[in-house]
Amino acid sequence: MASRSIQFALMIALISGADAQVSATYDSVARAITRTALSQNRSIEMLRELCAIGPRLSGSDQAAKAVQWSKATMERLGFDNVRLEPIMVPHWVRGPKEEAVVYPERRRMLMPVAVTALGGSISTPADGIIGEVVEVKTFEELRALGERARGKVVFFNRPMDRTQMNTFAAYGGAVNQRGAGAIEAAKVGGIAAIVRSMTTRIDDFPHTGAMYYVDSIPKVPAAAISTHDAERLSELLKTEPGSRLRLTLSCETLPDVESANVLGEIRGIEFPDEVIVIGGHLDSWDKGDGAHDDGGGCVQSIEALRLMKELGLRPKRTIRAVMFMNEENGLRGGLGYAAVERPGERHIAAIESDEGAFAPRGFGVGDSAAYVKIKTWERLFAHMGADRIERGGGGADISPLMRKGVPGIGLNVETHRYFDHHHSGNDTVEWVNERELALGASALAILAYMIAQEGL
Amino acid sequence: MASRSIQFALMIALISGADAQVSATYDSVARAITRTALSQNRSIEMLRELCAIGPRLSGSDQAAKAVQWSKATMERLGFDNVRLEPIMVPHWVRGPKEEAVVYPERRRMLMPVAVTALGGSISTPADGIIGEVVEVKTFEELRALGERARGKVVFFNRPMDRTQMNTFAAYGGAVNQRGAGAIEAAKVGGIAAIVRSMTTRIDDFPHTGAMYYVDSIPKVPAAAISTHDAERLSELLKTEPGSRLRLTLSCETLPDVESANVLGEIRGIEFPDEVIVIGGHLDSWDKGDGAHDDGGGCVQSIEALRLMKELGLRPKRTIRAVMFMNEENGLRGGLGYAAVERPGERHIAAIESDEGAFAPRGFGVGDSAAYVKIKTWERLFAHMGADRIERGGGGADISPLMRKGVPGIGLNVETHRYFDHHHSGNDTVEWVNERELALGASALAILAYMIAQEGL
Repeated sequence: MASRSIQFALMIALISGADAQVSATYDSVARAITRTALSQNRSIEMLRELCAIGPRLSGSDQAAKAVQWSKATMERLGFDNVRLEPIMVPHWVRGPKEEAVVYPERRRMLMPVAVTALGGSISTPADGIIGEVVEVKTFEELRALGERARGKVVFFNRPMDRTQMNTFAAYGGAVNQRGAGAIEAAKVGGIAAIVRSMTTRIDDFPHTGAMYYVDSIPKVPAAAISTHDAERLSELLKTEPGSRLRLTLSCETLPDVESANVLGEIRGIEFPDEVIVIGGHLDSWDKGDGAHDDGGGCVQSIEALRLMKELGLRPKRTIRAVMFMNEENGLRGGLGYAAVERPGERHIAAIESDEGAFAPRGFGVGDSAAYVKIKTWERLFAHMGADRIERGGGGADISPLMRKGVPGIGLNVETHRYFDHHHSGNDTVEWVNERELALGASALAILAYMIAQEGL
Repeated sequence: MASRSIQFALMIALISGADAQVSATYDSVARAITRTALSQNRSIEMLRELCAIGPRLSGSDQAAKAVQWSKATMERLGFDNVRLEPIMVPHWVRGPKEEAVVYPERRRMLMPVAVTALGGSISTPADGIIGEVVEVKTFEELRALGERARGKVVFFNRPMDRTQMNTFAAYGGAVNQRGAGAIEAAKVGGIAAIVRSMTTRIDDFPHTGAMYYVDSIPKVPAAAISTHDAERLSELLKTEPGSRLRLTLSCETLPDVESANVLGEIRGIEFPDEVIVIGGHLDSWDKGDGAHDDGGGCVQSIEALRLMKELGLRPKRTIRAVMFMNEENGLRGGLGYAAVERPGERHIAAIESDEGAFAPRGFGVGDSAAYVKIKTWERLFAHMGADRIERGGGGADISPLMRKGVPGIGLNVETHRYFDHHHSGNDTVEWVNERELALGASALAILAYMIAQEGL
């Protein structure tokens, strides 16, 4: 017992000592990074440029322009080894028409609803597909309907749980309706899937997002309707349960096209082959302009490197900004990046910003040893209120690296507003606050620099 | 020494013990309040109703309607002793015309600038007042100009320091230009004061706000121009220093009118004469609809009481929601409330929400003993990330109570976005996030309930 107590005391002393040392050495650097981010305010300038291109769905002309913009921007800023790494990406297009109209069973007045095809959906026939609407909250409820769902339009109407403090948890509790709704609808003979939009608000924006098919199950079209219309439709079905919905979609999946991840870095001066990745994803859905999802994460990654250069910081290890392509509907960028052979090179960490460009609160660290070390640096983020270092985290684009053993870290932000915008026409640059965006860049820069200097 | 060590150990044990006890007793209550606030989502409904009335400048018809709305709302919710406490308020009106045009010294093209009269300003002659523009950053710089400022339009162009983490600190460092610019301009013979808007952004909204005169100094008109136009004007003056500006304002101060604070409460079941005030201010500037400043604080105060009633909580002490009138240009509501004789009644705390309806981060406590006690409750606010209990705080409306010895407490929020909206046409309800607003109400409810049960 005595020896264990001594070990414990020593451990505490060591941690406290290391902590104090880190603080003394790096606190002024951290504050200088934040001061520069706020005073020069370059993140929002970059984000406005990127968003001016328009939405950047994989395979689109705008996605190609965004690749060129990223490369040109990092070259202009003097980053090292700016380059494209080509990948093939899916090419789904929405087409000119998406429309949904409810035909109430008894009333004469048609009820148009705000609708958007889900990404990956097949089209309907040109004059649409029509069927009686059957509402369910869960897949279990749908399966229990059995034959009664055959030939019907299945309406998935389980709301996101707005009592969740972290809106991503609420999203996690509802998004299987969007991802697998078409599969589950087809399993019981349904002819289409209509999904309540993934947002905690009641409003008129339909929110798109990825959906999937499996080859063994017939493919049926899938679309999201606004939460407001989901509520109206649900009300209608209570009194007029035989009401029908006509859905018309013109989307289609074209052959894959070549696109690219975009890389730029600051070479490490002591251990250049040890690499810290900072990234976001360059593609977005084709509504809004992808400002929060994830234009913000991209420009924050670029800005993090620019801040270091601006301040003359020379990291010991290489810090690489990566604009990943195709997070939204394929993850080909993340998978492709991790698959590239990089002889002699070792990734020691990967950091992603993809929760929206809101006020940073800290980091989620998906690796136990890395968590313990980063936790000792938390006070470096206290000046901006971003000092909550939590166990567990990462990001979709860096998940293939994480599966290869690279410690992954996600920037955590204030999430209340995110799903007001996510995947909808409401995700536009005027909803990004320039200070919150800049602070996220600063948080990334401080963490990447710490890892570059101290290892992980 | 030994005795001091023991005292210290005992103190720690007592604090830890109290802390653990509070946590066990109240944590489930705190979480239930937050869950109800998020799930029922009434704050945003109330705020939309209030904002639909329009801006609520003291003395206006809309301010009178807001008084009636507050009373009717608290009555509908079944609060105790809902009542008006009449006060006289200033009645400044903007009038139909406000216009500023720059006449560049050499170029022919006139440059209109986005302008707003400052609250309290006198008007100009009907065809405006014109003079050469002289730019200064500080009052010292203006005084140093001496005679060279005589007959000029004085342009105060010191930006808010955007490197301040708390934007209220940045505001504090710049707002004397708005408040006292006209006095300082007149002291050196200036004919008008033009002030750079109080915001960290560069945009096209002019931001109004209070300005003051003193009887011993001539009164000159005062107005704010947008930060974007302030930058343009400053650039112009570098190359064309003789440029002139014509300012036309039609504002005037009418005789005081009667208005009121609006009060409603939940009577305490054990100590009804011990009162905890929760409040915001009902008046707003006459741009936008005063959603963040301070419609949010008003509906949060009402919602805090409603949440307690909804959950069947019966506080030991009386909790009173107060909608203060005339915070913006007179503070007559705060002064009036504190001046009312309330025989047998004792105020034990006053809490204000007036930093905008953003994500709550904690409380600032303007009383040392109260701070120590509230600090032991901080974990009750951790579930919403609002557990930063800081020394120092309060609010304008409750400051007269604080001067009488009542502990004052301010709700602290994430402030990055506040001055994007403050006192401008951009302070409208669509910029309020319903979750952040609701969480502020929850934080107020939890703190007020704790004080009601545990004293202070």
